[in-house]
Amino acid sequence: RPSLVRMPVVMTVAKPGTRSSSQWQAIHADIEAHLKKAIPMKPPLVVFEPMHHLTFSAPQSTAPALCIAACELVGGGRDQAMPAASALHIIVAAAVAHENLPLTDRPEIRPPVAHAFGPNVELMTGDGMVPFGFELLARSDDPAGGNSERILRAIVEITRAVGSQGMVHGQYREVEYLLSQGRDGGDDHEWADHVWAKKEGELHACAAACGAILGGGTEEEIEGLRKYGFYVGMIRGVTAHGGGRREHGASNTVVEDMKKLALQALEGFDAGRVEAVASILDAIMS
Amino acid sequence: RPSLVRMPVVMTVAKPGTRSSSQWQAIHADIEAHLKKAIPMKPPLVVFEPMHHLTFSAPQSTAPALCIAACELVGGGRDQAMPAASALHIIVAAAVAHENLPLTDRPEIRPPVAHAFGPNVELMTGDGMVPFGFELLARSDDPAGGNSERILRAIVEITRAVGSQGMVHGQYREVEYLLSQGRDGGDDHEWADHVWAKKEGELHACAAACGAILGGGTEEEIEGLRKYGFYVGMIRGVTAHGGGRREHGASNTVVEDMKKLALQALEGFDAGRVEAVASILDAIMS
Repeated sequence: RPSLVRMPVVMTVAKPGTRSSSQWQAIHADIEAHLKKAIPMKPPLVVFEPMHHLTFSAPQSTAPALCIAACELVGGGRDQAMPAASALHIIVAAAVAHENLPLTDRPEIRPPVAHAFGPNVELMTGDGMVPFGFELLARSDDPAGGNSERILRAIVEITRAVGSQGMVHGQYREVEYLLSQGRDGGDDHEWADHVWAKKEGELHACAAACGAILGGGTEEEIEGLRKYGFYVGMIRGVTAHGGGRREHGASNTVVEDMKKLALQALEGFDAGRVEAVASILDAIMS
Repeated sequence: RPSLVRMPVVMTVAKPGTRSSSQWQAIHADIEAHLKKAIPMKPPLVVFEPMHHLTFSAPQSTAPALCIAACELVGGGRDQAMPAASALHIIVAAAVAHENLPLTDRPEIRPPVAHAFGPNVELMTGDGMVPFGFELLARSDDPAGGNSERILRAIVEITRAVGSQGMVHGQYREVEYLLSQGRDGGDDHEWADHVWAKKEGELHACAAACGAILGGGTEEEIEGLRKYGFYVGMIRGVTAHGGGRREHGASNTVVEDMKKLALQALEGFDAGRVEAVASILDAIMS
């Protein structure tokens, strides 16, 4: 088996001091503050210490912040999307923990990942984090029950995006590709498109759609934001992880095309309010 | 490290031909038929084949059937509890798959478990099954939305019972105990009580409570069935897996005491309707 190179997840942020940068940083800070309250360092420490560590050491995904921004774009309040954004953060962090587990039939991870805990604890903590994410969302139902339909719809969206036909399928294809790399000289391009569609495109599509659902958006707004989120996720996948394209120029053209499609998806929205959501493109492309 | 003995999960069933046996078998058959429809053998086979295998090869838990029986006891229809029962089956089966994953810091499993797939596929399939279980439950909301409050409540119940402070915590304590066994001669009795409370007691308590919630039971009925479920789960843990008690006689006394407490929890229910739920005690103790 060849020694395989696995690209590290690189978080790109907008240039400090710009308006879009500070908007996104404020949303990320709010999500983190919410998560710190939801996952306190309390007994039993054998449970909460690894959960705390894996939740906050995971590379920051842009999907939770997009969920918040989409909710605000359709007129909802930040608190309406916060439980879904927190759930997305926790569930993606659990997926990262499981992705980094050393298993006998997996490619070696290079550069090696630092493990704060043993494999058994990292496996089981990830297993506990996923239901906890869904719990945060399910119990955000208000006492009068006025939003329970929207919450159930968001739960279905997230289960599909992170499940066997979503994120997990992308992870499977990624491992499969890394194991075959250099052996059959497979189609990098097709592979990358599939993996980023599953791991980032559909995840961001789900995040934006959930924000719109929870904020009370119309079906048209939900679908517009879903499409926008898909392209945002694809761009993030290609720019942060690489597009599997040997010619770098082609990759830049593809990203520019996807940016155009993303902005087209926002055309139905009020131009004055769309800036926050649109600025994530600058944040991930800078 | 000593060679460790891990007790296999043994499914005990009621004597064939008895009334309680056929009632439970009918409920199990209904749940299985429902799951076979929910998890068809369809493309992508790389996703559905392992999911199908891990769902149907897992040792049968009594929690899903108890969920159905509890729903029927409070006057609900079988279909009202079926999505929750299916979710419980799938999530417990995923937990079993992860429990059997070979990891470097885990005790050896003896007798060895047969693996139909490699560790990478078994890990990721389990990761996909958990959201799928919650999806089945979340999308069982009826079009008029009349039961969405109950479904959200059942989701919260299940996330807690299977998460870091529930089933996963029991799994952690079990591994910890198996690794220390023979070294410090720890208290088997205390260990067994904790592990079965987390892995079986609280799981069955949750299953019975969810059945009562979904069937429209009163708060008193929900709490009565929760208590009943807890003792049923504890008895199942001790009888099927062993009580960690060196003196076999003591274990029998404990089981008889728990049976009394279980039946006490059913005292508020109509004597004519309680038989189906109560008969699970004979099924697991026979």
